[in-house]
Parts: sequence; structure tokens; C-alpha cells
Amino acid sequence: MSLIVTGSIGIDTIETPAGRRDNVIGGSSIYFAYAASFFTAVRLVGAVGDDCPPEVFDIFRDRPVDTAGLEVRKGSRTFRWHGSYLSDINQAQTLKVDLNVLAERAPAIPPQFRDSRYVFLANTHPLLQQQLLAEFPRCDLAVADTMNLWIQNEPQELRRLLGRIHGLVLNDAEARMLTDRTNLIQAAREVLKMGPRFVVIKKGEHGCLMCSADDLFVLPAFPAEQVVDPTGAGDSFAGGMMGHLAAAGGYSPAELRRALAYGTIIASFTISDFSLGGLLRLTRQEIDDRWRQFAAALQF
Amino acid sequence: MSLIVTGSIGIDTIETPAGRRDNVIGGSSIYFAYAASFFTAVRLVGAVGDDCPPEVFDIFRDRPVDTAGLEVRKGSRTFRWHGSYLSDINQAQTLKVDLNVLAERAPAIPPQFRDSRYVFLANTHPLLQQQLLAEFPRCDLAVADTMNLWIQNEPQELRRLLGRIHGLVLNDAEARMLTDRTNLIQAAREVLKMGPRFVVIKKGEHGCLMCSADDLFVLPAFPAEQVVDPTGAGDSFAGGMMGHLAAAGGYSPAELRRALAYGTIIASFTISDFSLGGLLRLTRQEIDDRWRQFAAALQF
Repeated sequence: MSLIVTGSIGIDTIETPAGRRDNVIGGSSIYFAYAASFFTAVRLVGAVGDDCPPEVFDIFRDRPVDTAGLEVRKGSRTFRWHGSYLSDINQAQTLKVDLNVLAERAPAIPPQFRDSRYVFLANTHPLLQQQLLAEFPRCDLAVADTMNLWIQNEPQELRRLLGRIHGLVLNDAEARMLTDRTNLIQAAREVLKMGPRFVVIKKGEHGCLMCSADDLFVLPAFPAEQVVDPTGAGDSFAGGMMGHLAAAGGYSPAELRRALAYGTIIASFTISDFSLGGLLRLTRQEIDDRWRQFAAALQF
Repeated sequence: MSLIVTGSIGIDTIETPAGRRDNVIGGSSIYFAYAASFFTAVRLVGAVGDDCPPEVFDIFRDRPVDTAGLEVRKGSRTFRWHGSYLSDINQAQTLKVDLNVLAERAPAIPPQFRDSRYVFLANTHPLLQQQLLAEFPRCDLAVADTMNLWIQNEPQELRRLLGRIHGLVLNDAEARMLTDRTNLIQAAREVLKMGPRFVVIKKGEHGCLMCSADDLFVLPAFPAEQVVDPTGAGDSFAGGMMGHLAAAGGYSPAELRRALAYGTIIASFTISDFSLGGLLRLTRQEIDDRWRQFAAALQF
């Protein structure tokens, strides 16, 4: 099934206990698309400014990623983020953010992308997410990510979005904020009352859980001994998850469980190096090997 | 195999978002012994003062728990703890603690308990844990719990203890403090260098992990929607774990994995009510039913 992602493309500067990288490629749609491309073809929509080095997109040269939706906007500047994990490897601290092109109009959806069936709306303003979703009239599965900023400042638009999507992906703190419940299973059930058919709560190093009307699934993180850079872990998790669902052509409880396991595996590679380094070297064979290793580590 | 536990017996006052209970039974060895008794016979060693209502021990009337090691000490007072989970359901805040009899000499080990093969040393001063361990010359498996107080104040005695036990059970914050490692898998491997053949790190609502030279096992917590009172979760986890190992008669990686799953299941019942309420009503059938439910919730 055709999978599309709309989200940010950014130039990141990242500090972690393992070191520092300046002006490396990042952004939610980049991590998502690269991760999903191990499972299925991906359509990428996003905007950068004319300051973005064009070789950045060479990373997709040998991947099934259609970058026709990538807009290089003249006179604009690319989104930039400077983050640090020095005080807590599990929680990014934003040192500087320049929204730049992200604060302008949304990128245009190429006409040939309008028949996309699987849609991932990476984190942005929920009104913009609704507008983007409306561009895909044949959508079978729409999943969105969100963040604390919109939960606090745009609750009404976020509620409207939740009434229109099939799945929501968010982290544990966001789930608690959105629902005012401390217990994550209770929080997940509250999210379901807001519209989505399933909700995935990401807990970072503690794994994830998925809740739907029919199913409750819990999964630890892959036991990683070295975390070099957690940037993009959540976006590549979502990419692995949606990539598998699009390849499977459905989101039954069984497929959702497998999708979360693939997302978990992909994220474990993402955090093993800075920026996209952990994904650029990756092969599908390594994903499948680690899948078996993970399944074995959970057996009792 | 004969299983013995040495630890505290206390009178607790507990405040949680679900309510308050005054002067209810608690203490590590009580939770441990009750939990383990679903799997095997248990020998209990501990001391109370003569202020302890004797009907407290009626809870073991129909359980395979030998209370011959229970010492009611004249002129002493029972250990008392007043804790609150009102600000954080996952972290007890101690409002008041009276060590009382726990600050006196250790309880005597009845001669007929000296042939115990499976020994659990619940949290107390590591010097006392070593003295207790020396009372069991035929011990096949010695597992200890510890806490931040001893890690900080008695590092040398704790190191001596670690050189003499087969397994260590501790929580995530304690593992980080003991090893000065943030990553829990790295922390677990550091603990193994200190002596134990395996280490179990409890992560509360996030489950647990077990690490040995041959194995690495991760397990989420049972997805509980209602947490009434977390008191005793860790001790009953250890009780389920050791109870299964003693019943199985060994601690191979496969048995350790099953033991951790049983510990997880037992703890999920403990937190469903105040004090021992969640265990008093429990049957082995319910444990096995939830075991199957848990295994199913983890399949992908």
C-alpha cells in the first residue's frame, strides 16, 4: 500500500555523552522515511530552504523513497535544531530552535501523491495536520504524532484531528498530559474515547504499549547497551511501524503487534549512532536478525 | 528445595491516591513468604516486639509457611513504617520510620532451618546479611536484596556480600548508584563483575531485566490499570521468583526467566489492594490464568 509521510526536514546540532555533531541531517520525516523504506516504498513531503545542501538528499538515492514532494523554497531557510542529551540521555534539551521554513505555508502535495492510502502525519500544528490529511481522500490508515505544545495550546484543534485519524502515536508524558491520567493504560483508553482506533504510547528506554478496543500489547525496548544519540528514535519507530503496516496492507491486532516490534528494532539501530548513521549502514537482513534476537530475549 | 527468607516484619501505615490504611501488616519477609508460598514451602525468620498483635500471623494459617523462626521479643517494639504514594504512585515517600526491633540483634535461626538450600536475604545491613548467610552451610542458591542506604554507607560490606551470593535483586536507581552506570544493561554487567552469577533489576511499572553471563532477559510489567498500593511489590516479586526457583530446583536461564515472569504476575496482584489484601484472596489458578494472559499480551 502507498505510504506517505509529511513532516519536518532539519539540520541538527546534537550533543550527547558520546560526542557532538554539527549541522547533520535530521527531522521527523527524514528518520521516518528512511526507517519505513526497509519495508515498503515511501513518499516524502516536506520543505527546506535554499540553504540546505542538496547532497543531503543523496541519502535516499538507493532507497525506495520518492522525494517528489520535497520542496526547496527560494529565499527561505531550513529548520534548525540544536539539542543536548548531556544531562539526561532519555530526554532532549532544546538549546536553540529556528523554525524557519516550518513557520511558513505547508509544502504542496504533488498530484501523484494524492492517492496515498497509508498516511503518517508527523508532529506539527494539529490544524495543519488536518489540512494535510484532507489532501488524501483515499486514505485507509491515518496515523498522527503530536507533542506537549499542541496538547497545551491547541486542545480544540487536536481534538478535531483525533476525530479524523485511525491511530495516534505519542510519548508517555504526552499521553498523561492529554488525558490527565497517570496510569498509562487508563490514559490509552481515554485516548481511544477521543476517536482513534488505536494508540501507541512510546516510553523511550522502557519500550511501548499499544491499546485498541480489542487488544492491549506491551513491549520492552530492545536491550541496548550503547545509546549514542536518541534523536529520531521515535520517528524511526513510527517509520518501521507504518512501513510494516503498509507492506502488510492492514492493521489487525496481530499486524499492529508485529509493526510495533519492527518499530522497536529500527529505533534500536537509530540510537546506535549520531543522526542517520545507524540507519545508513543497515540492511533488511540485520533487521530480521535482530527481530529474532529480540523475540528470543522475551521468551519465558 | 527448602526455601528460607530472612527479613523485616512490620506494621505499616500507608497513604495512596486510593486511600489510607493504618497499622496493617507489612515487611519484606511477610510479602516474600506469602508470595513464595504459592509455589513451595517457605521458612520465615524475623522478629517482632510484644506489641505485635498475634492474630497478624493468622494470615499464614492455611499456607505452607513455617513460622518457627518468628521471634516475639519481650520488651521490644515492632518495626513500624508510615509511607505515602500521594505525590508519586511509583515512589514511596517515607513519612516516619521506627526501626525498633530491627535495630537490635538479629533473630535466631532455628536449628531445623539450618539445612535450607534456597536462601533469600531481604534488604538489611549487608554485614547482617553475611552473618545470616553463614547460618546456612548447605545453601545452593543465595539471593539478596539491598538498598541505596547500604550502597552509599556500607560499600565494603556490600562488596563482601556480593562476593558470596549467587543472585542480587535491586531496583533501577540502586543499580545505577551501585555501578555508576546510567545504562541498565551496562549496570547489570558491572554487578556481575562484583560476584553474583545473575542480577535482577526491578523497574517498577516498567518491568524488570535479568542479566547473567549466558543470558539477557527483559520483561515489561503486567499491564495493570489500577494500582491501589505498591507496597510489597518488590518483595512479593522476589517471593514469586524464589518460590518458583525452589520448586524447580535450579536456576538455569530458562528457569530464571520463568521465575521472573511469576514474580511479575504475583506483584501485579500485590499492587491491586492495600497491604496483603491482593495476595490473601489469591489462588494458584488465578496466578496461572494471569500467566497465560501475560504471555499472550507479549506475543508478536
